[in-house]
Amino acid sequence: MRKIVVASDSFKGSVSSIEVAECAELAIHKVFPDCEVVKIPVGDGGEGTVETLITAMGGEVVSCVVHDPLMRPVEATYGILGDNRTAVIEMATASGLTLVPVSERNPLRTTTYGTGELIKDAMERGCRNFLIGIGGSATNDGGTGMLQALGFRFLDRDGNELELGGQILNRIYEIDCSRALSQLRETSFTIACDVNNPFYGEKGAAYVFARQKGADDAMVRLLDEGLRNFAEVIKRTGRIKIDDIPGAGAAGGLGGGFVAFLKAELKPGIRMVLDALRFDECIRGADLIITGEGKLDKQTCMGKTPFGVLQAGVRQDIPVIVIGGSVEEVEALNKSGFLAVLPLLPYPVSLEQAMDKDFTCRNIGRALEQQLRVIQYYMNH
Amino acid sequence: MRKIVVASDSFKGSVSSIEVAECAELAIHKVFPDCEVVKIPVGDGGEGTVETLITAMGGEVVSCVVHDPLMRPVEATYGILGDNRTAVIEMATASGLTLVPVSERNPLRTTTYGTGELIKDAMERGCRNFLIGIGGSATNDGGTGMLQALGFRFLDRDGNELELGGQILNRIYEIDCSRALSQLRETSFTIACDVNNPFYGEKGAAYVFARQKGADDAMVRLLDEGLRNFAEVIKRTGRIKIDDIPGAGAAGGLGGGFVAFLKAELKPGIRMVLDALRFDECIRGADLIITGEGKLDKQTCMGKTPFGVLQAGVRQDIPVIVIGGSVEEVEALNKSGFLAVLPLLPYPVSLEQAMDKDFTCRNIGRALEQQLRVIQYYMNH
Repeated sequence: MRKIVVASDSFKGSVSSIEVAECAELAIHKVFPDCEVVKIPVGDGGEGTVETLITAMGGEVVSCVVHDPLMRPVEATYGILGDNRTAVIEMATASGLTLVPVSERNPLRTTTYGTGELIKDAMERGCRNFLIGIGGSATNDGGTGMLQALGFRFLDRDGNELELGGQILNRIYEIDCSRALSQLRETSFTIACDVNNPFYGEKGAAYVFARQKGADDAMVRLLDEGLRNFAEVIKRTGRIKIDDIPGAGAAGGLGGGFVAFLKAELKPGIRMVLDALRFDECIRGADLIITGEGKLDKQTCMGKTPFGVLQAGVRQDIPVIVIGGSVEEVEALNKSGFLAVLPLLPYPVSLEQAMDKDFTCRNIGRALEQQLRVIQYYMNH
Repeated sequence: MRKIVVASDSFKGSVSSIEVAECAELAIHKVFPDCEVVKIPVGDGGEGTVETLITAMGGEVVSCVVHDPLMRPVEATYGILGDNRTAVIEMATASGLTLVPVSERNPLRTTTYGTGELIKDAMERGCRNFLIGIGGSATNDGGTGMLQALGFRFLDRDGNELELGGQILNRIYEIDCSRALSQLRETSFTIACDVNNPFYGEKGAAYVFARQKGADDAMVRLLDEGLRNFAEVIKRTGRIKIDDIPGAGAAGGLGGGFVAFLKAELKPGIRMVLDALRFDECIRGADLIITGEGKLDKQTCMGKTPFGVLQAGVRQDIPVIVIGGSVEEVEALNKSGFLAVLPLLPYPVSLEQAMDKDFTCRNIGRALEQQLRVIQYYMNH
């Protein structure tokens, strides 16, 4: 073994991604003292992406006050990576559902304005490359609020500027881009998007997601008609046809808004993270990749972190072993390509004990050391 | 992989030794369809030895009524192996502590007579080779009862024949072998003995074991003096000096009685079982040995089944992987020579769930399959 890559997600509630890598490194060096160990904290583009990428690539967390989904002030954070040009934003920090009490959830009113403010703040600090996670939104505004914060104006048939929230979508007739921030032209956006929902229609943003954001049946119909109108206007005004773009309906249509107005690229979250980390280059020549996640099951093969790592490994013919605190559906995991699936528990324990940090660290070390001892033996025999 | 040996103890209360082997075989053939799998149920010479050896070597369980430690009739069982010449006896079936209610436990009275009757019964059926487990005895009679059942007579200073139990040891002055079964001369005895206690003295049978058999302090002293006297008589009458033989104090001195009068060989239990199975021949040319036990810990390295299997593997340079439902002290196990220690649990469960038979079978299969997939990959790369 000359080179082993450790690229695990965090074990949620137990150990972080980098801690998993550090435990693994100790075990690897016990068995293969001279082996190069490349530790790459990774994640699926969801919660924790800012931390993951800053840990891997350096940088800092920036805090600023923006408007929450109901336009109340909220302190939000995002990351600026070590290159000082790349910002990492989780939209939920400014426009997330958890910021809105259940009784006030109303996607006719909620807006992504705060997310636009975060982008503006980062652009003012020099960022021209954006990695944006859009999970957990409180909104169904087609991204209009985010765009309004960046200078776009949405007008009705009479040329009046429209206010905020999903409620305006039906009435948009014209779009004024003349006051949009000029730096946007030299800025690129990558959006972590793990759903395929279209902008509107029965699988669109409103019908699938608006209810959990507070919409009733009538509201859902209204929002869907609004998104359909917005798409029509976008097309008519010479922009792209977003009707059929998978993922345009993500985060209440924010996905579509990013694509139509900011030429954003939608990517699976894990892919966005791995690309940002230049993962394909990092693993070149590795003899083994170790990945992991707290819980391994059928979901794992549907775009979660270990699966993204697996696909990268497979492309370079590198075997991938996956570790997990809780392991199910091992056969499916093998079929999808994992060389081996390793659970960690040494004896019966409660879920609470199983998630103890020190216990998990010891288990990761022990399980990997045993595995590597076997590999070492059979490599030499 | 051309040949893999599976030689695990049972997972007590969960799966039998042969079931472990069958689960392992399925997993092995999934990964290496053409691999020869040698399944050898093994045990440490304690409880279950009769079943283990019959499973491995054929034979039948024989039942007969003998006398229990207090000379009441009891139905006891033992095994006659497929060669029709080898009997496997667990002394506890006739002379065990569990046969005597707590209130009646009294090692001055309890006798190994029933064990002797089992030997006699087997000899009458043609057995000339005995494998005897002596754990769990209710007695401290130096094996006198067992010998009495076989025709030996113990006499006091006046030439009177002594009765039964530990109480006679002090008064033995002469031994009459003239009526001992003549077939004993052509019969060999191997005793599974995992303790090193001498016949008498502060680490001897009485001081170390008699209390748990119902003796009080005075009784312990009396019994120890009795054993010392018996050893003296044995020496004076031209037999061996058993004073210093490690294990002579096993089972209330039954170990010593076997050695002095029946030329028995005392062996670690696992060694007795492995020798009976011709284990060293069975594993010849194997690429891997898989052993296991329900619980792996420090004890494992002190003569339990997996350790015996390990030693046999080491002598032939065959790697040994050990599986366990509960695993502790992995570092010590590695140091003692196990290539790898594999726990089985896939996710947090209670001890009760962990011991469920089907669950354990699936876990054995899964853990080994994952392990073998890794071995296969690195053998080919």
